[in-house]
Amino acid sequence: MMNFNLIEAIGLLERMPKSLEQLLSGLSDGWLESREGEGTWNAVEVVDHLIEAERSNWIPRISFLLQEGASKPFPPFDRFSHLKNEPDRSIDSKLQTFRQVRSYNIDRLKELLHTDTNFNQTGLHPEFGEVKLSELISTWVVHDLTHTAQIVRVMAERYRSDVGPWVQYLGILKRTET
Amino acid sequence: MMNFNLIEAIGLLERMPKSLEQLLSGLSDGWLESREGEGTWNAVEVVDHLIEAERSNWIPRISFLLQEGASKPFPPFDRFSHLKNEPDRSIDSKLQTFRQVRSYNIDRLKELLHTDTNFNQTGLHPEFGEVKLSELISTWVVHDLTHTAQIVRVMAERYRSDVGPWVQYLGILKRTET
Repeated sequence: MMNFNLIEAIGLLERMPKSLEQLLSGLSDGWLESREGEGTWNAVEVVDHLIEAERSNWIPRISFLLQEGASKPFPPFDRFSHLKNEPDRSIDSKLQTFRQVRSYNIDRLKELLHTDTNFNQTGLHPEFGEVKLSELISTWVVHDLTHTAQIVRVMAERYRSDVGPWVQYLGILKRTET
Repeated sequence: MMNFNLIEAIGLLERMPKSLEQLLSGLSDGWLESREGEGTWNAVEVVDHLIEAERSNWIPRISFLLQEGASKPFPPFDRFSHLKNEPDRSIDSKLQTFRQVRSYNIDRLKELLHTDTNFNQTGLHPEFGEVKLSELISTWVVHDLTHTAQIVRVMAERYRSDVGPWVQYLGILKRTET
């Protein structure tokens, strides 16, 4: 079942930075530095990744798709570049950056799209082949949700032992066992 | 490894209602009514559950543990009562209620605990047997996180088909297959 709707998608995209800000701003390092093991991201690194994706993924690809169609593949995109590129600033400063780049990108999105835009038009993904504009924008939204789930999951990990026998009722701690 | 710390726990407990408010307030029904299948909760029902747990679970049990120790089991608690009890109000009104009851309960928690409170003291869980005060408070925190993960997961479900081939990179959509 297809549910994509631009207004709804934007509704979620514009809420996410504020929601993460309320959750993470001023939070103690114990939570912010919690991770699920070596090589996994903590909450701050997830925010870095969200910022990086705003800069080099969503709008650049949407814009490329609208200009080039499926004639040329999207330029490559390094999903781990934030781990080397993001400067060591406070979480509050990073959250503010995320809010600003997201707000700017939603404005860009509205400029790029028009009432007669065909959301079934395609671009060429280097790995997947032809992908639809609607799929790219839907992925932007679900990417926010998946990384929000990751943030709360890595924080929950900090109390894995502390919850004692309740661990069996807390789905968020069950999943990483698999 | 044990990480429980009261100040940190409260830090997360007091942020959660505001974070959910930023995420869900004014959001369109498409997102709020999304669910993972029959008998599963949508985002609004999860908020109902969080409100109900504030009223009948955490503080009542903490208070009972402090008074009775492990001499008597906690009074029973119906984890599904919100499905029959919560009135049909707007999401904004429910989010406001959650913020109020949470704020009241954090004040109650601070009243109940003292600088010499022993967090290893135990109560009697009807199913698990002896449980520690620190385990109960830790569970309160992780319960917030698990239900936040649930909210974003059930919303992501709405775009399962819409993301097209990206589904394989979106962990939040992978998990429900198992």
